Amino acid sequence: MPPLVIRSPQVFREKQNIDARVHHRVTAIDLPKRTIRAQDLNTGKAIDEPFDRLLVATGASPILPKIPGVRARGVYTLSSLQSGIAVREAVDRQAPRRVVLVGAGYIGLEMAENFIRRGIRVAVVEKAPQVMSTLDPDMATLLADELVKNGVELFLGESLREFELQKDEVRTVITDRRTLPADLVVMGLGVRPNSRLAGEAGISIGETGGIKVNEKLETQTDGVWAAGNCAEAFHLVSRRPVAFALGTVANKQGRVAGINIAGGETVFPGVVGTAMVKVFDWEVARTGLQEREAKQAGISSAGVKIEARTRAGYYPGAGKIFVKVVFEPGSGRLLGGQIVGHEGAGKRIDVLATALHAGMNVEQMINLDLGYSPPFSPAWDPVLIACRQAAGQV
Amino acid sequence: MPPLVIRSPQVFREKQNIDARVHHRVTAIDLPKRTIRAQDLNTGKAIDEPFDRLLVATGASPILPKIPGVRARGVYTLSSLQSGIAVREAVDRQAPRRVVLVGAGYIGLEMAENFIRRGIRVAVVEKAPQVMSTLDPDMATLLADELVKNGVELFLGESLREFELQKDEVRTVITDRRTLPADLVVMGLGVRPNSRLAGEAGISIGETGGIKVNEKLETQTDGVWAAGNCAEAFHLVSRRPVAFALGTVANKQGRVAGINIAGGETVFPGVVGTAMVKVFDWEVARTGLQEREAKQAGISSAGVKIEARTRAGYYPGAGKIFVKVVFEPGSGRLLGGQIVGHEGAGKRIDVLATALHAGMNVEQMINLDLGYSPPFSPAWDPVLIACRQAAGQV
Repeated sequence: MPPLVIRSPQVFREKQNIDARVHHRVTAIDLPKRTIRAQDLNTGKAIDEPFDRLLVATGASPILPKIPGVRARGVYTLSSLQSGIAVREAVDRQAPRRVVLVGAGYIGLEMAENFIRRGIRVAVVEKAPQVMSTLDPDMATLLADELVKNGVELFLGESLREFELQKDEVRTVITDRRTLPADLVVMGLGVRPNSRLAGEAGISIGETGGIKVNEKLETQTDGVWAAGNCAEAFHLVSRRPVAFALGTVANKQGRVAGINIAGGETVFPGVVGTAMVKVFDWEVARTGLQEREAKQAGISSAGVKIEARTRAGYYPGAGKIFVKVVFEPGSGRLLGGQIVGHEGAGKRIDVLATALHAGMNVEQMINLDLGYSPPFSPAWDPVLIACRQAAGQV
Repeated sequence: MPPLVIRSPQVFREKQNIDARVHHRVTAIDLPKRTIRAQDLNTGKAIDEPFDRLLVATGASPILPKIPGVRARGVYTLSSLQSGIAVREAVDRQAPRRVVLVGAGYIGLEMAENFIRRGIRVAVVEKAPQVMSTLDPDMATLLADELVKNGVELFLGESLREFELQKDEVRTVITDRRTLPADLVVMGLGVRPNSRLAGEAGISIGETGGIKVNEKLETQTDGVWAAGNCAEAFHLVSRRPVAFALGTVANKQGRVAGINIAGGETVFPGVVGTAMVKVFDWEVARTGLQEREAKQAGISSAGVKIEARTRAGYYPGAGKIFVKVVFEPGSGRLLGGQIVGHEGAGKRIDVLATALHAGMNVEQMINLDLGYSPPFSPAWDPVLIACRQAAGQV
């Protein structure tokens, strides 16, 4: 297996002349003095480091509710390579028979699949009345059915109350409706930007909790940039700042900030909210605004959902695909889309994402010259079938 | 298996009140009289049929060179359901040991794979120095290697001279360089629009050989529309009419012509030249202009080709993908793209196709918010890696 860590501190130092100091925790940014203060975690010593230009790339941290037992042994989060290794080692060491996943978002659903494949009983507890709150309820139902079909016990609309421990280790998860035995718990309640360090230094933080940045990834403080999960991004459809924590966005922001800090000039215009996840046999993808988000953004919206096939109907391996298109009545402007389907379904979201960047309407999209050949698509691509139907209702 | 014929003449008649007369050959269009003349192929009788509005949808026919033996038994083309059934029956009946395919385009390559899978020896003869002339040579080489690896004998840069027959049946294919034994031959030299009927009636035919149409699919003759493989389409990148014979384009044109003929109003702005084919383990796709076509259209072009993975490198099943992006130096305007790769590679062409419709440049495309999750893509989508590299060379 290729390594998960692509570049070590040694390579940064030797090949790129970048002094990457790991095991150092930055404790303060002193803007007037243009220094940062850090603690060397190996020696405990505090050091000060001057800067001309500063990039804040502090990432995000898992959200943990303040309930009894949440810090106990056996309760895990998944937000770093180390935390992933910790869960894996716990599973290998303890051979848990029952796992409870709190939160039915990306982390929860991916973990559900993998625990089930290892023969472990899985219960998912989710406060919302649906899984994957980034999908509209009619699309999320498809996923819920898939989870149940694969043996996942799904408890929607239930709130976590507390964890019961035995010898400081989690044994039971208590919700407002039931008590679930648990040998291991994974918390997947999302993340929040690590913006406190920047905020304490006086760098502006947005309403999302992320660091405010412009198109160049500059913060509102001269000479200070921010990029990645600690920073906001501009949503090109809602025209509002958002704080998604997605690797693709972080990567692109890092590139733009780096070019600008080094004296180049480029921009990161923003995001359209594309995300994907695999849940057993379903590929799941979404982009733009779902109906609820459109409403929140004050944009009137309508949605159409179609069912089609991933390949020509007669071609071996043709699977189901559901495509939902969200659009603005009247103008027909595309606002977003959601896809749930079998192999080959998910990445079709990219057509909708690209169309969102281009500001297309559903009528224009009907005639998009997308790729066709029976092993890959019906003659009318499912995304275009959805657009065709939407255009009929504009 | 779902049927290949989606709707029978009976269904057209009974459910949709459409008098679909099969086994009738239209022999003339009389524009002054507003009638068509047809021959009932069952009775031989000629009939005249009046029209207020006329749609010409006569399709395209395979190109056949005028060489000795080309009409002999054992020499097939593939352009209709019937011709496909004929080849299939010949294979089942005669169990050919050696097949020669003339032409290394979509038909030739798809047939090569299927004959090889049936254990038949396959030789492909192609006049051009590469397979798939719709790809640039550097991408086509990848396919040639795949064909050879799978046991196909490939003879590039060779011209067909004649067929030798035995008892009126093909036995040998003779090129300008060699003699190949053949129990069965499939001709895959492309098609030309069936526009003669329209041309004889005085309807304008374009330089491509296809019937000239405007955005509404009207011909230059009042009250006459044309759609599908007999008609031209406007190429949105080269800004010239083209006559591709593709099912997706035909489908979309048919919809637009139908709406307009029935009194509605809609347009078919044009195509960007997207096409796909599966060749053994490779998915192959192209859109826009290749470097040669850009030159022909008088547009200066440059290309970059990158190699990446279809999924995150550490994820099981990650395969190779090569992406080539063709762009205009200076402006960075995207002109086209080509993809060859393993499972999940091909439909990525749709991002490039959609961007061509939107008139994007490669710099804008770097920040497209495409779907990412390890089972589906690296964090930097391969298409974006190619755009990033292209943008560096604008």
